[in-house]
Amino acid sequence: MPQLVMLRHGESVWNLEGRFTGWTDVPLTDRGKHEARDAGRILQRNGFSFDSAFCSVLKRAVETLNIVLEEMDCQWLSVAKSWRLNERHYGALQGEYKEKKIREVGEEQVRRWRRSYDERPPLLSASDSRNARLEFAYRSIDPSLIPLGESLQDTVSRVIPVLRELIEPELLQGRSVLVVAHGNSLRGLVKYLMGMTDKDVVRFEIATGVPLVFDLKDDLTYRTHRFLSEK
Amino acid sequence: MPQLVMLRHGESVWNLEGRFTGWTDVPLTDRGKHEARDAGRILQRNGFSFDSAFCSVLKRAVETLNIVLEEMDCQWLSVAKSWRLNERHYGALQGEYKEKKIREVGEEQVRRWRRSYDERPPLLSASDSRNARLEFAYRSIDPSLIPLGESLQDTVSRVIPVLRELIEPELLQGRSVLVVAHGNSLRGLVKYLMGMTDKDVVRFEIATGVPLVFDLKDDLTYRTHRFLSEK
Repeated sequence: MPQLVMLRHGESVWNLEGRFTGWTDVPLTDRGKHEARDAGRILQRNGFSFDSAFCSVLKRAVETLNIVLEEMDCQWLSVAKSWRLNERHYGALQGEYKEKKIREVGEEQVRRWRRSYDERPPLLSASDSRNARLEFAYRSIDPSLIPLGESLQDTVSRVIPVLRELIEPELLQGRSVLVVAHGNSLRGLVKYLMGMTDKDVVRFEIATGVPLVFDLKDDLTYRTHRFLSEK
Repeated sequence: MPQLVMLRHGESVWNLEGRFTGWTDVPLTDRGKHEARDAGRILQRNGFSFDSAFCSVLKRAVETLNIVLEEMDCQWLSVAKSWRLNERHYGALQGEYKEKKIREVGEEQVRRWRRSYDERPPLLSASDSRNARLEFAYRSIDPSLIPLGESLQDTVSRVIPVLRELIEPELLQGRSVLVVAHGNSLRGLVKYLMGMTDKDVVRFEIATGVPLVFDLKDDLTYRTHRFLSEK
């Protein structure tokens, strides 16, 4: 039975500081590393093993995956990293403090930026130093694909090709796959797998550091899902 | 100019204990991690950046590479792991203490096992629990390719396909490549690149944690090499 396990990285430095993060490449906090270690341990204890692993190119996901593989004693596993698994791009909000933004534009606007399906944040200007098109890490990506700010809908659209082109071929061979990514990029995978509505995906919450296990039918249609936690 | 940088992992637990290691999957010591951090820092300070990275499937190499990528702030780089980059397989010597073995069979025999080009160590029996063919990490590899003990010559032969099939295509596109591996698997790469004799390769020493930089001509023939160290 094909199995896909998703894991949302643990606490990052900017989560802790209450800042919009998006594509900003901030590291995990010690607590975030601890969450990753717990996730690895619970996967190990529940007898999981993986044939391939994927993560975003953001270090909070890479570090989480490295720690999980260490805990599971399977550092031999090759890891494919894709920008398409990055967190939703938060445009010009990246780096801003959420509380400050609420004071500036009101709670309702910030809620819409965070919780609507198709509303984009204010976009970055192309010359903004936060523009990923200027970064070495993205230099081999077609610049026209690199966003300056995304709605959740945009994120879902650019995540799906990873599932279709890289992950599904693995699952179709009966392999077990682990994906370590972010709240919104994982929502994209979940929406596609479960055929969820736009409304429902916004409400679907994925806790940090808690493995989310999808059991699929042989044709990769959805069967069940569950969160793996100690409680 | 195509550039290939090799790095031998730092001290492992069994280096420290003076045991034959080979394919045994032992972790780095704290000193080994420190060596990796220094290597990353010196690469960073010398302006190196990489387009792709390779390592063996042994955790002492994987951990070294993870630390280097962290120090260079390029954890976004995808890493290909191959068993072909593993250390020379030390057969039935794996796990034995070098000093004890010298007392048992004499210094000359141990020297030959360690320093001849084509002498194999005593092989593992197929049912030995140390046989990698029984391990999950190697289950997708054709068992007939997995050694039960290797001469340096055997190691050189199985390393070369990684260079020819995976690394050279990257270099031919002008990309910079980092390979983190082991004393003897790196000797295989060096021998091939420099067209070294069997005798010379045995004498070629690669210090742990010191990046070895190869500048190549556009057709990938050898130009120069140098060790990057603080001194």
